[in-house]
Amino acid sequence: MEYTLQQIARVVDGRVTGDSELVITGMGALSTAQPGQISFYGDPRYLKDLTETHASALIVADLTDLFKGPQILVANPQLAFAKVVALFAPSPSGFTGISSQAFIHATARIGANPTVFPWAYIGENARIGNDVVLFPGVFIGDRAQIGDRTVLHPNVVVLHDCLLGNDVCVHGGTVIGSDGFGFTRQGSAHVKIPQVGMVQIDDQVEIGANCTIDRAALGKTWIKRGVKTDNQVHIAHNVVIGENSIIVAQVGISGSVQLGREVVIAGQAGIKDHVAIGDRVIIGSRAGITASVPADQIVSGFPAMPHRLWLKTRGLIERLPDLQARIKMLEKKILDLEQQRLDKE
Amino acid sequence: MEYTLQQIARVVDGRVTGDSELVITGMGALSTAQPGQISFYGDPRYLKDLTETHASALIVADLTDLFKGPQILVANPQLAFAKVVALFAPSPSGFTGISSQAFIHATARIGANPTVFPWAYIGENARIGNDVVLFPGVFIGDRAQIGDRTVLHPNVVVLHDCLLGNDVCVHGGTVIGSDGFGFTRQGSAHVKIPQVGMVQIDDQVEIGANCTIDRAALGKTWIKRGVKTDNQVHIAHNVVIGENSIIVAQVGISGSVQLGREVVIAGQAGIKDHVAIGDRVIIGSRAGITASVPADQIVSGFPAMPHRLWLKTRGLIERLPDLQARIKMLEKKILDLEQQRLDKE
Amino acid sequence: MEYTLQQIARVVDGRVTGDSELVITGMGALSTAQPGQISFYGDPRYLKDLTETHASALIVADLTDLFKGPQILVANPQLAFAKVVALFAPSPSGFTGISSQAFIHATARIGANPTVFPWAYIGENARIGNDVVLFPGVFIGDRAQIGDRTVLHPNVVVLHDCLLGNDVCVHGGTVIGSDGFGFTRQGSAHVKIPQVGMVQIDDQVEIGANCTIDRAALGKTWIKRGVKTDNQVHIAHNVVIGENSIIVAQVGISGSVQLGREVVIAGQAGIKDHVAIGDRVIIGSRAGITASVPADQIVSGFPAMPHRLWLKTRGLIERLPDLQARIKMLEKKILDLEQQRLDKE
Repeated sequence: MEYTLQQIARVVDGRVTGDSELVITGMGALSTAQPGQISFYGDPRYLKDLTETHASALIVADLTDLFKGPQILVANPQLAFAKVVALFAPSPSGFTGISSQAFIHATARIGANPTVFPWAYIGENARIGNDVVLFPGVFIGDRAQIGDRTVLHPNVVVLHDCLLGNDVCVHGGTVIGSDGFGFTRQGSAHVKIPQVGMVQIDDQVEIGANCTIDRAALGKTWIKRGVKTDNQVHIAHNVVIGENSIIVAQVGISGSVQLGREVVIAGQAGIKDHVAIGDRVIIGSRAGITASVPADQIVSGFPAMPHRLWLKTRGLIERLPDLQARIKMLEKKILDLEQQRLDKE
Repeated sequence: MEYTLQQIARVVDGRVTGDSELVITGMGALSTAQPGQISFYGDPRYLKDLTETHASALIVADLTDLFKGPQILVANPQLAFAKVVALFAPSPSGFTGISSQAFIHATARIGANPTVFPWAYIGENARIGNDVVLFPGVFIGDRAQIGDRTVLHPNVVVLHDCLLGNDVCVHGGTVIGSDGFGFTRQGSAHVKIPQVGMVQIDDQVEIGANCTIDRAALGKTWIKRGVKTDNQVHIAHNVVIGENSIIVAQVGISGSVQLGREVVIAGQAGIKDHVAIGDRVIIGSRAGITASVPADQIVSGFPAMPHRLWLKTRGLIERLPDLQARIKMLEKKILDLEQQRLDKE
Repeated sequence: MEYTLQQIARVVDGRVTGDSELVITGMGALSTAQPGQISFYGDPRYLKDLTETHASALIVADLTDLFKGPQILVANPQLAFAKVVALFAPSPSGFTGISSQAFIHATARIGANPTVFPWAYIGENARIGNDVVLFPGVFIGDRAQIGDRTVLHPNVVVLHDCLLGNDVCVHGGTVIGSDGFGFTRQGSAHVKIPQVGMVQIDDQVEIGANCTIDRAALGKTWIKRGVKTDNQVHIAHNVVIGENSIIVAQVGISGSVQLGREVVIAGQAGIKDHVAIGDRVIIGSRAGITASVPADQIVSGFPAMPHRLWLKTRGLIERLPDLQARIKMLEKKILDLEQQRLDKE
C-alpha cells in the first residue's frame, strides 16, 4: 500500500509542511523506520531517536528543526499515528462466510456477512449479530448473544446465556462465563452454590488473551462500555467494571467488587471481594487493595496506601536494617546517659 | 419451573411458617428477587436488604419480624439456598450421545450415557466412565482415564496417562498434565528432564478455568478428594493437595509442595517449592510462603507471618516515614543531652 | 523396555562398578523406585532416601557405601538421569501424517514427516517445517512459520506472521501473537493502537501452558535461543528475552523490557515496562522490579533490592511492631531525662 503525505494528512486531520506529494510506503517507530516510511514524535524521551531516524516524514505536534523532511502537524501525534498504522495494517484474510466444518445448532441465528471458521461451535438458540468473526475453536454456548462486528479470536469460550455487545474484541483462549467460585461448607466438605447468573459485556470492550470472567451467582457480572483488559486478567462473579476502565495484565478482581468509570489498575494488582473503587481511581502495579477507595485517589503498595506515601515508604522498607541499627545506637546512648546520671547521684 | 413452598421445604429439610401452598417461580438475592421469588437471609451484613426485599418468601435460620411473608426455617440458610438454586437452574441442553464430529480413537472405551460434543478428541486406549460430558475442544490424551459423571468444559486439555475420578468438574481452558518445569544445566544451556509422571485428580474435585496442573517428573501430582480451585491457579509437578482444600484464583504452588487437608489459600498467594503446609492452615491473599507451616496456623503477608502479627505489621509499613521521623528526632534530642552534659563538664 | 547397566552407562557416558549385565526395567526417584529400577543420588538433602531406597542400581558422582548395589559413576548425576528417563519414556502414539479432519489452507506448505491431528488449523501461506507435531485445536495463523521438529501441544494458538524456530516446544493453551496492550486516549475513551509487529521465537525455546506472548506494536517481540518458560507467564509487546533465560510460573514482563542472556526470574515476579535487565541477573520470587538491574546482580522483594539486603529486611518487616515499641520506650526515656534536667535547673 502507498499513500501520499496529503492523503495521510487528511486521515489524521493534520497539516503538511514540506512535500505533500511524497509517497509513503509504510510506517515504523523512529528507531526502526526505513526510508519511504513515516514515523511520529511526541515524547521527549525519544529525542535521541528523533535525531537519528531514517524515516522520510514525521507526524508531530510542533514543527521540529531536528528533522529535515516533511512533517504533518496534528494535535495528538500518538493518536494520529494509530490511525496511520491502521491504514497500513494487512487486512485479515482467510474465510468469509460460514465454514462447512463449523458446528451451528439448527436453532442458532446468525446475522449478515458472517465469518465462521472451521471448528467453531455455536449452541442452541444462540444469536450472532452482523459482521461477526469467530475464529477456529471458538465456543458459543446456548442462548448466548454476540453483537455486531464483534471478533472472537481462536479458542475463546463464551458460555451459555452470556451477552456480548457490538464491536467487542476478545483475544485467544479467554473464558467468559465460567462458574463463579462459590461453595458453602457442610462438615469438612464444600457444597457448590450453583452459579445461575451470567456475564454481560458492553460495546467496544476489548479483553486480552487467556483471561477468565466468571458468571454471576445470581444476576450478572458486568463489564461496561469501552473497558480494555490486558492478558491473564481474572474477574470474579458479580463484579461490575465501569466505563472506559483499563486493567493491565495478571490483575485479579475478587467477587462483587464494584469499579467506577475510568479506573486504571496496573499489572499484577489484586482487589479484595466486596470492595468499591471510585471513579478515576488509579491502582499501582502489584498493589493489594483490602478496602474501598474513594474517587480520584491514586493508591499503591501492599498494603495499599496513597501513592505519595508509598513512594516514601518503599524507600524506607529497604532501609529497615539501617533504622534498626539507629534504634540500637539510641538505646545504647540512652543507657549511657542514664548510667552517668546514676553515677552522679 | 414452579414449586410450592412445601415442595421447596422438603428439598431443603426445612419447616414452613405461613402459606405453604404459595407458588414460587424463581429465586434471587434479597436485593434483586422479584415478587413470586424466594430469597434467603443469614448474614447481618444484609439486614438493610432484608427490610427492602421484594421476595415473596424467605429461607432463614431464625424467624424474623422484618419480613412479612412466609419463611422456611433451616439450620444453614446458605446451604439450603444452594439447593433451591439447583432446583431452578436450567438443565444444560445440546447433545446427548457422541457427535459424529468428535474424534474417538478406535481403542478408546466410553461408558454408558456419554455426551461428547463436536471437536472433542479422545486418544488411544483412553477410558471414559459413565455419564461423562466432554464439551467442544476437549482433548483426552492416550491412556488417560476419566471417571463417572465428570464434566470437562470447552477446550479443557487432559494429557496422556492422567487420571480423573468421579464427579470431577474442570472449567474451560484448563490444562492438566503439561510437563513439569524441570531442566538441568549443561554449560549455559538447559537440558530438559523428561517429565514421565502423571496427574491424579480424585473424586468430587472442581478445577477453575485456565488453570495449569503439571504432571510429575516421576510418580504423580495428586489433587485429593473434594479439593476446589478457582481460576488461573498454577500447580507445579509433584505437588500433593489434601482433601477438601480450597485454592482461590491466581495462586501459584511450586514443585513438590505438600498441602494437608482442608487448607485454604486466598487469592494471588504463592508457595515456595518443597514446603509442607499442615492440615487446616489458612494462607492470606497475596501471602508469599517461603517455609513450612504447621497445622492450624493462619499466616499472611510477604514475607508470610502469623496473621495477627501481619495485621499489626501492615499498619506499620505505611507508618515507616513517621517512625523514621521519630528516630531522627530522638537522635537530635540525644545529641542535645550529650552536648549539655559536655558543656557542664 | 529393558536395558543392561552397561547399555545405560554408554548412554550417560559413565562407568559401571558392580554387575554391568544387570537388567534394568525402569527408573524412579530414590523414594519411589522399585526393585529392577535405577535411580540417582547427587543432593545430600536426599541422604535419608538413599539409605532406604529399593532401587537396584544407582547413578552417582562419587561411589557411596550407603548403597550396596551396582553404581554408575558420572560427572553430573542429574543430567545423566535426565537421559535415562528419556530412554524409558513412552513414545507418543497417535497419528502420523495429516488427519483428514485437520484444516490446511490450500496455500500452506508443510515439510516432511508431519503429524497434524484432527481439529488443527493451518492458515493461508503458513510454512511448516519437517517433523512438526501439531496437536488437536492448534491454530496457525496466516503467514506464520514453524521450524523443524517443533511440537505444539493441544489448543496452542500461533497468530498470523509469527515465527517459531526449530526444536521449539509450546505447551497447551498458550497464545502467541495476541495484540499488545496499546491504547491512546481520546477524551475519556481509549483508541486502539494497531499492533502490527509479530513474535519471533528462536530455536530450542520451550514455553509452558496457558502463557501469553503479545505481538509487537511495530517490529518484534523476541524470545531468543534456549529460553525456557514455565506456565502462565505473560510477556508483553516488544519484550526481548536473551539466550538461555529461565522464567518461572506466573511471571509478568511489561512492554519493551529487555532481558539479557541467562537471566533467571523466579515465580510471580513482575517487571515494569521499558526496563533493562542485565546478563545473568537473578530475580527472586514475587519480586517487583521497577528499575533497570545491571548484569550479575541478585535482586528480591517488593520494592526489589539486592538479595542480601532483602534477607535482612524481610526479617525486620515482621519485627516492625517491636521496633515501634522500642521507639516509644526511647521517647519516654528521653522525656524522663529531659524532665530530670529541667528539674535540676
